[in-house]
Amino acid sequence: MIASTSIHIERTTTPKAKPPQDKLGFGIYFTDHMFIMNYTADEGWHQSRIVPYQPITLDPAAKVFHYGQTVFEGLKAYKTADGRVQVFRPDANMRRMNLSNDRMSMPEIPTDLVLDAIKGLTHIDQDWIPDGEGNSLYIRPFIIATEALLGVQPSQAYTFMIIMSPVGAYYPEGINPVKIFVESHYVRAMIGGVGEAKTAGNYAAGLKAQDAAKEQGYTQVLWLDGAEHKYIEEVGSMNVFFKIDGTVYTPSLNGSILDGITRNSVIQLLRHWQVPVVERQLSIEEIYEAGKNGKLEEAFGTGTAAVISPVGELNWLGVKLVINGGATGGLSEKLYNNLTGIQYGKLEDEFNWMVEVK
Amino acid sequence: MIASTSIHIERTTTPKAKPPQDKLGFGIYFTDHMFIMNYTADEGWHQSRIVPYQPITLDPAAKVFHYGQTVFEGLKAYKTADGRVQVFRPDANMRRMNLSNDRMSMPEIPTDLVLDAIKGLTHIDQDWIPDGEGNSLYIRPFIIATEALLGVQPSQAYTFMIIMSPVGAYYPEGINPVKIFVESHYVRAMIGGVGEAKTAGNYAAGLKAQDAAKEQGYTQVLWLDGAEHKYIEEVGSMNVFFKIDGTVYTPSLNGSILDGITRNSVIQLLRHWQVPVVERQLSIEEIYEAGKNGKLEEAFGTGTAAVISPVGELNWLGVKLVINGGATGGLSEKLYNNLTGIQYGKLEDEFNWMVEVK
Ligand SMILES: Cc1ncc(COP(=O)(O)O)c(C=O)c1O
Ligand SMILES: Cc1ncc(COP(=O)(O)O)c(C=O)c1O
Repeated sequence: MIASTSIHIERTTTPKAKPPQDKLGFGIYFTDHMFIMNYTADEGWHQSRIVPYQPITLDPAAKVFHYGQTVFEGLKAYKTADGRVQVFRPDANMRRMNLSNDRMSMPEIPTDLVLDAIKGLTHIDQDWIPDGEGNSLYIRPFIIATEALLGVQPSQAYTFMIIMSPVGAYYPEGINPVKIFVESHYVRAMIGGVGEAKTAGNYAAGLKAQDAAKEQGYTQVLWLDGAEHKYIEEVGSMNVFFKIDGTVYTPSLNGSILDGITRNSVIQLLRHWQVPVVERQLSIEEIYEAGKNGKLEEAFGTGTAAVISPVGELNWLGVKLVINGGATGGLSEKLYNNLTGIQYGKLEDEFNWMVEVK
Repeated sequence: MIASTSIHIERTTTPKAKPPQDKLGFGIYFTDHMFIMNYTADEGWHQSRIVPYQPITLDPAAKVFHYGQTVFEGLKAYKTADGRVQVFRPDANMRRMNLSNDRMSMPEIPTDLVLDAIKGLTHIDQDWIPDGEGNSLYIRPFIIATEALLGVQPSQAYTFMIIMSPVGAYYPEGINPVKIFVESHYVRAMIGGVGEAKTAGNYAAGLKAQDAAKEQGYTQVLWLDGAEHKYIEEVGSMNVFFKIDGTVYTPSLNGSILDGITRNSVIQLLRHWQVPVVERQLSIEEIYEAGKNGKLEEAFGTGTAAVISPVGELNWLGVKLVINGGATGGLSEKLYNNLTGIQYGKLEDEFNWMVEVK
């Protein structure tokens, strides 16, 4: 049951100081307001409101703490040179959120209301959108199960919230290539599991491998499939692409990886440019083979946080594969420039991706 | 870093009414007090205290809501006929909690302090331990990541809590056999994943399959392995055993199933009784084969909530397998009687499993 209502607004009377624009990091600072609404089986979604950013109070038996029923999204608002504010493909995030909700036995959200909430909240806190290359406002909608009951069944009550954080470039290396560790022991998700849902447990499951990779000097982990440790899945919070002999390859959406919105946008751009792009099962072995034969031209990750993140080196079972001499490839750079060009309003938005906030 | 301190106690001034002893259900009612302590990287675990049961307040950016870093345990306290209070194998739960903590990149807990907390809390709320066949006090220790930061890294701050709930028999069918649906599409966990950790995401991942099974009249799902959908893992919140031609089989601890404390106790009892018991990889096919040949004598689940839950029917790919004519088997009943006999203090505690609370 979806109840759509208007959004009540309560403005803060004690605005916070803005953080220094050159030391934003990712998800450290939060804006002055947040959006919140509640769900019960009887009333559907109700009491939608924008209020001052504040702690929330939950029963210690709330299901989110015990059985992890939760879904989240991540998207960004950008400030253009002429002062407009625009959000990148929020409709796609809302669609994906409802797919995640379905997988996690959670109620559908009213996407029109939530789009209004995203716009309303971004508008109210627009002074928080930072200027500067690579800076933006990260928007985090999320839903948590709140029913205070320890039975392992779907919760009958939920809270949906949106919080926002002014962010700098996600990867400290910036558009410089990152080194990625190919994980052959730990597994993040598998077919039949919840890998394609944007749900908390998938991220907790990845921490240990990620820490081990970091200790060895790698920025992130490249996950392989859970059944055979043979096929490429995705990187930490990015989908992954490989340019081999003029064609761009990316793992197909098999149910265990996230249907990334940046991934989808990159595929659209490549098709538009008539660069051949293939979605299929990709083995790590063929990537190494292509590397050996000199046919692996570029590799890059795609995601909301980093947009495009070139991959300069892989390490699979101790064997290092340096890609494009460890430098950013031409296609990676072109994609980065085009996507950020559209996001910051410097290039024409041919695909109608940007939603302006007025 | 583990900081051990004494436990500060604040008693409630407004005790709640106790629930009706014949309508307890599972995890619906909570006692008057709870235990809580906090962790920071600098201070380790600190501020351990027993306080009135009350809501907790968290920043909406707390990592538990976004990345699911959480671990929990479940154990029970029982009241004996002569009024003593005893907890079943709390030391084993504490050991398992620290294994889960390690897998989830979470800090170790000081087990001695936590055992004291379990005893102290059970003692303070001992009037909440219900009388009556199958009734007990369910104890739920859990840890949640509280740092308000959206980067995907392990949290630097955690809260550990213990809440308690007077419970009746977990399965409405009681010691009567349950019907179990063998899941061939959805997957709960896999080798290399977090299946052996008692962490929230594993339970959220199982809800959809569980709901589908319930709609078809099955109490729970029997999970198969994630790679081939061939080998038996475990049931919802129970490990599973099969008695075939006089020998008892249970899936070995392969990393993707929980190392159940009831499972371990059953194995110890069987060995003590000189009933042959084998832990190994078990295919669903051989169970059906044994059923067809008349050699499958019994099947049962083991877990803190149900203790022993006989399985009367399986449904695998539409083929129903009725076990022991759908009735409770002799070994299941003997195990149930022995375990609950020890738990309720009716039988001698030969294995030193019970910890008395004074
Ligand atoms: C696991 C995972 N894969 C891929 C992505 C990339 O998706 P998107 O491009 O929508 O940000 C993300 C998130 O940002 C992610 O968390
Ligand atoms: C997934 C799972 N398997 C098995 C069990 C049984 O473990 P125990 O006997 O320790 O309760 C549980 C929990 O209770 C569980 O959650």
